[in-house]
Amino acid sequence: MARAAVVREFGVPMELTEIRVQPPQSGEVLVRIAASGVCGSDIKALDGHSPVARQPPLVLGHESAGVVAEVGPGVTSVRPGDHVVIAMNGPCGRCRNCSRGRVHLCSGPARLNAIMGLMGDGTTRLTVDGVPARPMIGIGSFAEYAVVGEAACVKVRAEAPLDLLALTACAVVTGVGAVLNTARVETGASVLVVGCGGVGLNVVQGAVLAGATTVIAADVVPAKLALAEEFGATHTILAEDLPAQVGEIVRGGTDYAFDVTGNVDVLAQAFAATQPGGTTVMVGSPPAGRPLSIPPQTLFASRRLLGTQGGDAVPRRDLPLLADLHRRGRLDLERLVSERVPLDKINDAIDHVRSGAVARSVIVFD
Amino acid sequence: MARAAVVREFGVPMELTEIRVQPPQSGEVLVRIAASGVCGSDIKALDGHSPVARQPPLVLGHESAGVVAEVGPGVTSVRPGDHVVIAMNGPCGRCRNCSRGRVHLCSGPARLNAIMGLMGDGTTRLTVDGVPARPMIGIGSFAEYAVVGEAACVKVRAEAPLDLLALTACAVVTGVGAVLNTARVETGASVLVVGCGGVGLNVVQGAVLAGATTVIAADVVPAKLALAEEFGATHTILAEDLPAQVGEIVRGGTDYAFDVTGNVDVLAQAFAATQPGGTTVMVGSPPAGRPLSIPPQTLFASRRLLGTQGGDAVPRRDLPLLADLHRRGRLDLERLVSERVPLDKINDAIDHVRSGAVARSVIVFD
Repeated sequence: MARAAVVREFGVPMELTEIRVQPPQSGEVLVRIAASGVCGSDIKALDGHSPVARQPPLVLGHESAGVVAEVGPGVTSVRPGDHVVIAMNGPCGRCRNCSRGRVHLCSGPARLNAIMGLMGDGTTRLTVDGVPARPMIGIGSFAEYAVVGEAACVKVRAEAPLDLLALTACAVVTGVGAVLNTARVETGASVLVVGCGGVGLNVVQGAVLAGATTVIAADVVPAKLALAEEFGATHTILAEDLPAQVGEIVRGGTDYAFDVTGNVDVLAQAFAATQPGGTTVMVGSPPAGRPLSIPPQTLFASRRLLGTQGGDAVPRRDLPLLADLHRRGRLDLERLVSERVPLDKINDAIDHVRSGAVARSVIVFD
Repeated sequence: MARAAVVREFGVPMELTEIRVQPPQSGEVLVRIAASGVCGSDIKALDGHSPVARQPPLVLGHESAGVVAEVGPGVTSVRPGDHVVIAMNGPCGRCRNCSRGRVHLCSGPARLNAIMGLMGDGTTRLTVDGVPARPMIGIGSFAEYAVVGEAACVKVRAEAPLDLLALTACAVVTGVGAVLNTARVETGASVLVVGCGGVGLNVVQGAVLAGATTVIAADVVPAKLALAEEFGATHTILAEDLPAQVGEIVRGGTDYAFDVTGNVDVLAQAFAATQPGGTTVMVGSPPAGRPLSIPPQTLFASRRLLGTQGGDAVPRRDLPLLADLHRRGRLDLERLVSERVPLDKINDAIDHVRSGAVARSVIVFD
């Protein structure tokens, strides 16, 4: 039995209760969760708006780290006692995309099942009052224990702070990865970041890591802009008319723009703020229904518009890199944490994130 | 005096007449035109729909090659008698974009003037009946002589066939460049090409050059599909529902899609025919007014949408490469030519291109 926050129905607070966690099966790992960040995607799922978390009961949480408690048959890369960050994507290594080096687009059956909250065999290891419960994207880290695929377990040093490294699994790798993997920002570039929440701040520090010399942070909340400056933004904009405001800082427009708002109209504005040859990355995930609309003649001037799926991360390359950058003082994780709360207070943490008052709330377990 | 086809007013045939061509000034080159292809952009300008050819009298033509007749002061890279291809873009080498290696986006004053049909000093060397006439994008090769900037003159071997190399300046470098420079297609990739006119056929042969092993040509004209097969297309589609038709050839969608129709709805269909992580390049230039509309969730799956400006060409790198590929039998130029016509027949050639009956009409001079 494990204590967990369970979504019984959408649109109401999660229920703190006990769930039954079955032992890890072949290729699976039981992880005692140490920490799990609260992400906007969790809230989207709680509200019933996530395309990948449709069937309650659900256990949310997908930005986590912990300690291996038990391994199933055939698991060779980790053993009990190992400290691990749980990657959002455990690539199979065998599908066509993995074989081509596009492991961030793994389309193996285990990954496709995980996205829908199931294990590789199409079942789940969790039950609530005897009813199977789905863990969000195959993780479900708002619980004391989670069973995940071996490929999602990325071992880190035992001394590393798991409450901070948990954030690398989603917010950090998405933001930094969008800069380093998707856009491949180069030294000396100008970068616009629109939306300075948990992910946007990591786009800011990713841009700094990549050597960008002009890093413009835009948001509608002044407090978030102040935080963006702490992460290395060289300019801040209280967003009104992005192309005009950016044009005053970088004549002709920015080299790169990252939209982290998930709003297609803001995305279109960010695109319009790039110079000819400029690159826009859609980091946020706008809801379906409303299309992105851009004038083709602006695209004609060799502009580029790129999607990114969680920073196009290769987990076993990128998560150890992020841990190492943190250890060397190059990546700020502590300042991302606005509050640490126990699992029992998770619904309060959800409210704090929902209000936009905090960068990241982290659920910490005993 | 030089014989030329002059646009006196939009929407009616060009007038064959004599124009006065002043001598080349500092940094300029007088070229005796040997051949000039007829491109859709010329027709767009003739119809009054080009944003860069607004003021008659105009001399159209921008896909050309010839022999240097005279050089202005300070010209060092070519001399009289040299055979040259006239690049659409003569980069200044000094502006911020040129300095950063983005010479295809040169934003120097000479280039900006050239785009509007003027020389570097903001004037023109052409007059018709005493009235200054603008050469299209600073070239105006539907005339026996043109005065162009030195940077636009790319020297080629004297034995090279100028009537064929003329095509490399626009149709070929745009199509092949979109593959090699913009998309950087890799060996083994799958490529969809929508629209198999003069540029689209060069996307097909660019894809073959890049090592693509699946090259799907789509058009609504069966004769163009037959031509695409001659250029190396492995599959042809009479376009109806591109995502479904492409999905039957490449499960999950194509790696790359190139829209060469200049129609935003077709572009959106081409984008929808790419797989997650796939790349779409807008090669055609849709008219302003109607936006491109795409569902953001398809972009989220790490898809990419890229603009290209004439194949993002670096003239002095790419035009000699294309000439060399042709010499080695790797690039088919002859089959692009549907007809060779003298300047006096240019209005007929315009009609042929307009009807879509030919890949390329080439105006050849004595």
